Amino acid sequence: MTATATNQRAYNFSAGPAVLPVPVLEEVRDELLCLPGARSSLLEMSHRDKQFVDILHDAENSLRSLLGIGDDHAVLFLQGGAALQFSMIPANLLRGTGKSAAYLQTGTWGKKAIAEAKKEGDVSIAYDASGSNFDHTPGSGDYNVPDDAAYLYYCSNETIQGVQFQSEPPCPGSVPLVCDASSDFLCRPLDMEKYGILYACAQKNAGPAGVTVVVIKRDLLGIGSDKLPGYLNYKNHADNDSEWNTPPTFAIYVLGKVAKWLANDVGGLDAMEQANRTKASLLYDVIDGSGRFYTGHARPESRSIMNVTFTLPNDDLQSKFISTAAEHDLVNLKGHRSVGGIRASIYNAMPLDGVKALAGFMSDFASKNA
Amino acid sequence: MTATATNQRAYNFSAGPAVLPVPVLEEVRDELLCLPGARSSLLEMSHRDKQFVDILHDAENSLRSLLGIGDDHAVLFLQGGAALQFSMIPANLLRGTGKSAAYLQTGTWGKKAIAEAKKEGDVSIAYDASGSNFDHTPGSGDYNVPDDAAYLYYCSNETIQGVQFQSEPPCPGSVPLVCDASSDFLCRPLDMEKYGILYACAQKNAGPAGVTVVVIKRDLLGIGSDKLPGYLNYKNHADNDSEWNTPPTFAIYVLGKVAKWLANDVGGLDAMEQANRTKASLLYDVIDGSGRFYTGHARPESRSIMNVTFTLPNDDLQSKFISTAAEHDLVNLKGHRSVGGIRASIYNAMPLDGVKALAGFMSDFASKNA
Ligand SMILES: Cc1ncc(COP(=O)(O)O)c(C=O)c1O
Ligand SMILES: Cc1ncc(COP(=O)(O)O)c(C=O)c1O
Ligand SMILES: [Mg+2]
Ligand SMILES: [Mg+2]
Ligand SMILES: [Mg+2]
Ligand SMILES: [Mg+2]
Repeated sequence: MTATATNQRAYNFSAGPAVLPVPVLEEVRDELLCLPGARSSLLEMSHRDKQFVDILHDAENSLRSLLGIGDDHAVLFLQGGAALQFSMIPANLLRGTGKSAAYLQTGTWGKKAIAEAKKEGDVSIAYDASGSNFDHTPGSGDYNVPDDAAYLYYCSNETIQGVQFQSEPPCPGSVPLVCDASSDFLCRPLDMEKYGILYACAQKNAGPAGVTVVVIKRDLLGIGSDKLPGYLNYKNHADNDSEWNTPPTFAIYVLGKVAKWLANDVGGLDAMEQANRTKASLLYDVIDGSGRFYTGHARPESRSIMNVTFTLPNDDLQSKFISTAAEHDLVNLKGHRSVGGIRASIYNAMPLDGVKALAGFMSDFASKNA
Repeated sequence: MTATATNQRAYNFSAGPAVLPVPVLEEVRDELLCLPGARSSLLEMSHRDKQFVDILHDAENSLRSLLGIGDDHAVLFLQGGAALQFSMIPANLLRGTGKSAAYLQTGTWGKKAIAEAKKEGDVSIAYDASGSNFDHTPGSGDYNVPDDAAYLYYCSNETIQGVQFQSEPPCPGSVPLVCDASSDFLCRPLDMEKYGILYACAQKNAGPAGVTVVVIKRDLLGIGSDKLPGYLNYKNHADNDSEWNTPPTFAIYVLGKVAKWLANDVGGLDAMEQANRTKASLLYDVIDGSGRFYTGHARPESRSIMNVTFTLPNDDLQSKFISTAAEHDLVNLKGHRSVGGIRASIYNAMPLDGVKALAGFMSDFASKNA
């Protein structure tokens, strides 16, 4: 971090909206009153302005090149958050098809998606990890999906539980794979050919709140009915390059800068994954070496490299941990109200130094309070 | 305008996203890396953070006090733009009711809203101004609305045509009045008691793209079915203070600053209306005094004080007008592609000096080219 205006900044472990790269924030600040080459702020610029259209296409192309997204997928920038995707997916791919959609329920966000899907059609929960308090993802033989399912849906990283799929779950070739990647988007390379839809709200790993990226196979665009509310029909957005109506221009602009930072400063998604694994290991190593002072929530083979969740021996120690950490400039470590405990979200933009500081603090706190 | 970073700025007559107050942009810039009192940028702050919740409530309260919105209305901050409201309104208030919704069709945006409403139920076009190329709003005896209509819908300011209702259209007491105020929100005081729903995307008169304000009478919240996609149900947003899911935090933050600028710098909506009328008169006076060199699109009694639309004798002169104006730092004057001609959008944040400059340019251009 640079000094001056950043000197009140702390290491921010918020689960989202979450830490962004400081060089991106600095650029946004410097361009805020007048975008270079423009006669106004980006905030004041028509979405039809050629300069903004170029910004939108640049953001799209940065994502395409980071993830290796080919022409058979459209890349959309939508509003409504991930929660609107919970409905748009079944509204487009399930409603009126007479098919059943298969869901893997491995945490809170998948469960919410299922509740919305049930409003649109028949849903089968192909795997349900709720019985073990959502502490793991299924193994490959643990569930079945019929060949004629409308799609197979899963959440690659359950932000609240800190449970992450290590790779794509098996899925019949005839069935579109649909993934909520909100909290691990761009954390590692993916084989995008495997996905029917991969979507992510930006505010965890890719930008500010207000934009959701939807990568969708073009052959899925025609399934939704013309009778859908216009905003809910993916085809409208794809046909109009995300300008069916006014897109969230500022959020797209920031997301584009984050994608460029990933490509140029970090060196792409392989390098990013390696850095993320290094960071996550620092914390899991402290947990595993703490003689059960810290207890990880996720089973080791399902651990998230984005959200590290753990508990302390009792509530008093947890409160003390959170308040003492804040005094050490380590903030927003409280677990989600639905599960309690501690959650350290260490997204792409969390610097290694921040994680080192937290790991050091954890060791120190354990030795003083165990 | 101040010098330094603003010195490439021009007077921006864009219809939206559109001009914002420079003091607001300066504050946003100064706070971009670290929000005062916080340990991070606003862009990195959880929407559950108390400081952000306060910002959201402040924005709401500023709107309440500017417009005199009482407790019988909820104020919501939504994503999806005005276009999602085209669907949410009939999805909540028409679908499954067996009623018919009445629409006044006075321009392009009302027409688009009607197309979405027809997907949800029975629609009657109580007044249709398309026959006269959308150049006026109806008089009070020009249409009828049955007492049992689901609602009466109109667009208070048709942004593309530059046609504005001078006051609320007559509506039976039993029928909720629903208004798309996207392009004249906060341009003048309103009697909010008259409205069932008043909504506006922010990116014209109230902030950046990415947030839509919906003011809705609480007694309308229960009409929508539980089977609606969760995001589309107004009740979810009202019950959760616009945090049913992650709201567009940055857009709300900027909107809150614009509302404070209106209250403190401008002096409230009466003062704003007066300033807007002064600005609009400057342009309409040039049009009317130009000996038909400039032809206004709207009939005089339906003229908008936000979007001033007019044509020149031929296309060549229109192109020359636009390019010459740009050389004089007057930009984005091209009319919407669907109607052509010139459109000068002179929203709240357009300074009087900008309008004076445009009026002067128009007079000069007319005398040189007539
Ligand atoms: C995995 C996941 N899915 C969905 C959501 C919901 O996103 P939104 O609040 O944008 O609807 C979140 C977080 O908020 C999330 O972490
Ligand atoms: C009056 C009016 N209604 C609706 C819209 C559509 O708004 P959005 O693009 O946010 O859907 C606009 C402008 O874009 C408008 O001017
Ligand atoms: Mg491909
Ligand atoms: Mg914007
Ligand atoms: Mg009231
Ligand atoms: Mg934000």
